[in-house]
Amino acid sequence: MAPVYQLKFFNFMGVAEPIRYLFAYGGISYKNVEVNKDSDWPDVQKSVPFGKLPVLEVDKKVLYQSVAISRYLGKLVGLVPADDLDAAELDAIALSVYDFGAKVHEWYHESQKERKEYLQVELEDIWLSKYLREFEDIVQKKGSYFGGQKISWADLYFVGIIESIEGMWGSKLLEKQYPLLYRIYVHVHEIPAIDTYVSNRPHYKY
Amino acid sequence: MAPVYQLKFFNFMGVAEPIRYLFAYGGISYKNVEVNKDSDWPDVQKSVPFGKLPVLEVDKKVLYQSVAISRYLGKLVGLVPADDLDAAELDAIALSVYDFGAKVHEWYHESQKERKEYLQVELEDIWLSKYLREFEDIVQKKGSYFGGQKISWADLYFVGIIESIEGMWGSKLLEKQYPLLYRIYVHVHEIPAIDTYVSNRPHYKY
Repeated sequence: MAPVYQLKFFNFMGVAEPIRYLFAYGGISYKNVEVNKDSDWPDVQKSVPFGKLPVLEVDKKVLYQSVAISRYLGKLVGLVPADDLDAAELDAIALSVYDFGAKVHEWYHESQKERKEYLQVELEDIWLSKYLREFEDIVQKKGSYFGGQKISWADLYFVGIIESIEGMWGSKLLEKQYPLLYRIYVHVHEIPAIDTYVSNRPHYKY
Repeated sequence: MAPVYQLKFFNFMGVAEPIRYLFAYGGISYKNVEVNKDSDWPDVQKSVPFGKLPVLEVDKKVLYQSVAISRYLGKLVGLVPADDLDAAELDAIALSVYDFGAKVHEWYHESQKERKEYLQVELEDIWLSKYLREFEDIVQKKGSYFGGQKISWADLYFVGIIESIEGMWGSKLLEKQYPLLYRIYVHVHEIPAIDTYVSNRPHYKY
């Protein structure tokens, strides 16, 4: 019998969106549990590993950390290369995408005014172009995707997180300056199962 | 022919120590390149992915992100379980160990006095006991190690990072309050190849 999957995250994209993409890509059914940050979260937080979401229950096992969950699902749906070194390169890319998203997330949720301004300037002056330029360079060296000629879970991870980053930042980031990354973005959205998912998902702002 | 490995990191333990453990465990030769933070770093930083260390060159391929490198080496030396779900659980643990180390690292390197004090209070009041208690609970549920009865790369990752955390924090953290974690710490150090490595390594303070 197929395992029962239950994904717990807030009612926005965030680091869960690549997981939802991977479920869509693989045509795998799962229960998407939306945790309301104001009402449900205090109780839910006490019940999940290290007090963090997303959490993926696979039957009775509890997976956490979006990169670990996404790699696991990526393997399941055939998007992890067979060669261990090639696979490890994609792990490093996904972890760097996560780091990039975490920087934007930190700025977005900072409540102290001065620190928020400081983080915003850092993002504008350094991190946005630094991360996106390096990602663009990797794709250029590799070919069409992060892993070369074949799409991988790292591409889905990147696109899912970029959608969330663009939502927090308030503007599109790829189309004008990063044509290879934008092409990955478009290609991922053109996958029929992902197109269907995106067309029907709730309107999450980030 | 065996690949040529070259590990680049600063002249301290940090997130490279689990990688050095894994090389020792597997009896794998590598070149340990120590980057001096004051003199060498500005130039090296421009040459490595996302301006960060550690970097592991495997022949001409460049791996980065300590968790990705450690998982790769873990697989190579037989410390990743064959079952994908079991393997993913260890990924999530290693990523949580990384997060914990990153919090201590942020406090240690913060130069702004008020923010450093704020981060220190957070560590003392929340994070140190939160992370270590959850890690201890995981081991309790699993058995002797993070993955159950058998040692894995997550155990080596934990012990390598904890050594660095204790170095930054300035005191031992496990022995009195976290007996199962302390037992893992002792067991890892008792592995002859790791004992030899630790006995001969340079005196890194963290």
